[in-house]
Amino acid sequence: MTLPDEAAMRLEALLGSRLSRGAADRDHHALSESFHRAPPPDAVAWPESAEDVAEIVRICAAARVPVIPWGTGTSLEGHALATQGGVTVDLSRMDKVVDIRAEDMQASVQPGVTREALNTELRATGLFFPVDPGANASLGGMASTRASGTTAVRYGTMRDNVLGLQVVLADGRIIRTGSRAAKSSAGYDLTGLFVGAEGTLGIVTELTLRLHGQPEQVAAAVCSFDSLEHAVECVSATIQSGIPMARIEFVDALTARAFNLHSGSNMPETPHLMVEFNGSPGAVREDAQMFGEIAAEFGAQGFDWATTAEDRARLWRMRHGAYHACLALRPGATGVVTDVCVPMSHLPAAVAAAAKDIRDSGLIGPIVGHVGDGNFHSQILVDPGSEAEIATAKAIAVRMAERALQVGGTITGEHGVGIGKRGMMAAEHGDAWQVMGTIKAALDPQNIMNPGKLVPDRN
Amino acid sequence: MTLPDEAAMRLEALLGSRLSRGAADRDHHALSESFHRAPPPDAVAWPESAEDVAEIVRICAAARVPVIPWGTGTSLEGHALATQGGVTVDLSRMDKVVDIRAEDMQASVQPGVTREALNTELRATGLFFPVDPGANASLGGMASTRASGTTAVRYGTMRDNVLGLQVVLADGRIIRTGSRAAKSSAGYDLTGLFVGAEGTLGIVTELTLRLHGQPEQVAAAVCSFDSLEHAVECVSATIQSGIPMARIEFVDALTARAFNLHSGSNMPETPHLMVEFNGSPGAVREDAQMFGEIAAEFGAQGFDWATTAEDRARLWRMRHGAYHACLALRPGATGVVTDVCVPMSHLPAAVAAAAKDIRDSGLIGPIVGHVGDGNFHSQILVDPGSEAEIATAKAIAVRMAERALQVGGTITGEHGVGIGKRGMMAAEHGDAWQVMGTIKAALDPQNIMNPGKLVPDRN
Repeated sequence: MTLPDEAAMRLEALLGSRLSRGAADRDHHALSESFHRAPPPDAVAWPESAEDVAEIVRICAAARVPVIPWGTGTSLEGHALATQGGVTVDLSRMDKVVDIRAEDMQASVQPGVTREALNTELRATGLFFPVDPGANASLGGMASTRASGTTAVRYGTMRDNVLGLQVVLADGRIIRTGSRAAKSSAGYDLTGLFVGAEGTLGIVTELTLRLHGQPEQVAAAVCSFDSLEHAVECVSATIQSGIPMARIEFVDALTARAFNLHSGSNMPETPHLMVEFNGSPGAVREDAQMFGEIAAEFGAQGFDWATTAEDRARLWRMRHGAYHACLALRPGATGVVTDVCVPMSHLPAAVAAAAKDIRDSGLIGPIVGHVGDGNFHSQILVDPGSEAEIATAKAIAVRMAERALQVGGTITGEHGVGIGKRGMMAAEHGDAWQVMGTIKAALDPQNIMNPGKLVPDRN
Repeated sequence: MTLPDEAAMRLEALLGSRLSRGAADRDHHALSESFHRAPPPDAVAWPESAEDVAEIVRICAAARVPVIPWGTGTSLEGHALATQGGVTVDLSRMDKVVDIRAEDMQASVQPGVTREALNTELRATGLFFPVDPGANASLGGMASTRASGTTAVRYGTMRDNVLGLQVVLADGRIIRTGSRAAKSSAGYDLTGLFVGAEGTLGIVTELTLRLHGQPEQVAAAVCSFDSLEHAVECVSATIQSGIPMARIEFVDALTARAFNLHSGSNMPETPHLMVEFNGSPGAVREDAQMFGEIAAEFGAQGFDWATTAEDRARLWRMRHGAYHACLALRPGATGVVTDVCVPMSHLPAAVAAAAKDIRDSGLIGPIVGHVGDGNFHSQILVDPGSEAEIATAKAIAVRMAERALQVGGTITGEHGVGIGKRGMMAAEHGDAWQVMGTIKAALDPQNIMNPGKLVPDRN
């Protein structure tokens, strides 16, 4: 599908220089942090308001041209690639924090606001937005992929922290979902439907977010284990004990080595847990002590407490840098990133099986995980020019996903479907995947909203 | 729509004595705890399996006969009334706890299991299911109305505690939504779509629920205030302070009087807060102390601590009995129950305005609330034979809902839409209500699943 001249002229009349058909802009929006590749879109549009987005969608709908929303381009499954051509709607200029209602612990933001920008604005309020996928992603993109990250074990995912949305539908209607109330039983949970819909049902143009109070006390620590199994079994035991962990992150020995090379840390090159406790001083003390007792049972050693805010920031910056640090383990490599999530009791076996599979393949694949949720990733390092290596890595990823499904887990805990996970949706959902297609067809009968992603092909 | 003989014969062939067309059974399923009334269904079916439900739906679909799911009949907005005739599917015989996976903190249950029955089964595990609407409702019904109650401020609503569902669709297909993983980004959140759909999109035949650990320490207390405003402002201040309240319930002076009359308590007949703290011993001590300090600022008096499990059970039994206790304030009366939910900063004004409206009407209308969520109810006592009183009460309810919408709140925090709140859905949702209708039409093109509820009339 190319962009017809008439539609392009209408878009130019609407947007002026905020529409580009130039190769550089188009190519920039064909990039992806992952190994997924697609041709560039036919044009890139930079709306500045919901009305802009609505008019772009109406013009594209009249010409049956695909519309692909773009946040910061940090998604990992090719969500924002224009696989069927069309107009990429880059929301980076819709970057206003509309309203902070500290007394209600809420903020309304445009979709191009990044999580770090929001938290910078919130600094004086004593509140923060907890969802933390690592990348400084846009909040619209985070909602659309149902992102989570290191703090989900305590604060939940985007599903739990988006109270309402403004959305432009496939016919250009602008709707509002949800409310500013903490809960509601007023009909279908449309907010929940658009969160995780990856732009296939509409484009998010505003979000109402739930904020949280900065905890009175924060303590963080790193400890090491002699084996992957002991580290992960410690996580299972900790979660089952009910300790309200604020973060509990697993990194394997390879990742520890990558940290040492990349961040100048001096960790033993063994599996580690990185943990954080939030709460009142007494609660943090008790929680940390209980965790310490459980960890000791699994042979944890070398507890290194990050007592100052700077130490904690350095710790979590290192964790967030794991993706790039691990890439450096094999210069020139790209990562095939997996993202399964399993019930807690199956986590130790799932991680061990993945590690064995990677070892047997001869590839390098560090494993990290938001293990308090049962969610872990391997980043299998491949030569982007080697089809054989990519095929090997993809096969490992498929086996990890199949094993997750066998124990009732999911093929993607937080990255989403995009084009990368679409081939396994039928295996996870059965007929329910067709139901997703039915909903998509009802709300986007022309199939112009980010087509080719998430749902089955239309018959 | 009456039930055609052929369809009735097919249902009888399937169910035998588990189908009834007798007046007593039909009339029993025309009852409602609320003032809503409708004619009885044409028949009542008691399935024992998802396959039974699927076959009932297929038979009804072939004859275009409405199918209305029924749990325990405790809903308050006429959700389970057969307003257009058809077959009521009474799920009370699907009351098996299928599986408790303590190590994953999950249980799978059939929809007819009540919350009390589940918690009885869980007693030995150290786990519990927290969602607590007061009535001993069925878990299928609680999911379908997105129920919550006294503990939602800490543990969330059904939205947060249902991980997955088995659902029979309008064409008889049986699907599974969600997974046993703690989180997932694998496509549209169908679990969230069916939770709160009130049986209009399908019938829930199994639920996967998230369980929680019994807190190490529990403390509960009652304290009194000299005015409604002081009590509610104390709630706002408490929530804004970030104290992780396990419960924070408001009851007004009339409700305190009803408790004294009905439960033999000896409370001052003034507004009260009933609170609970859960956690480690240190956390409970610190949280209770912080709350005490805030409450003192608002003039709280007469702190009465329920230190034993029996005392706490008595306290919450009394709170749960508020509906029936308050009915006794006016013998023979029925209650028009309201259910708005507003952002926290608007709670004091919203409660005060409701109280004034009720006072001005000359009716008796006690006010209680799950105020930690901004959710409160008035139970306006009317003579069920007096159309004038019912009209007055309904007008008060509408004004409460309108005021809630003006501050970004919702017309129903936890009771749902049913037939009672349908008239205000357009006011809350605008075009988004039409989107709900589009989804309903796509998944139930014949409009047989609990028709006449929640969504707009079909054009």
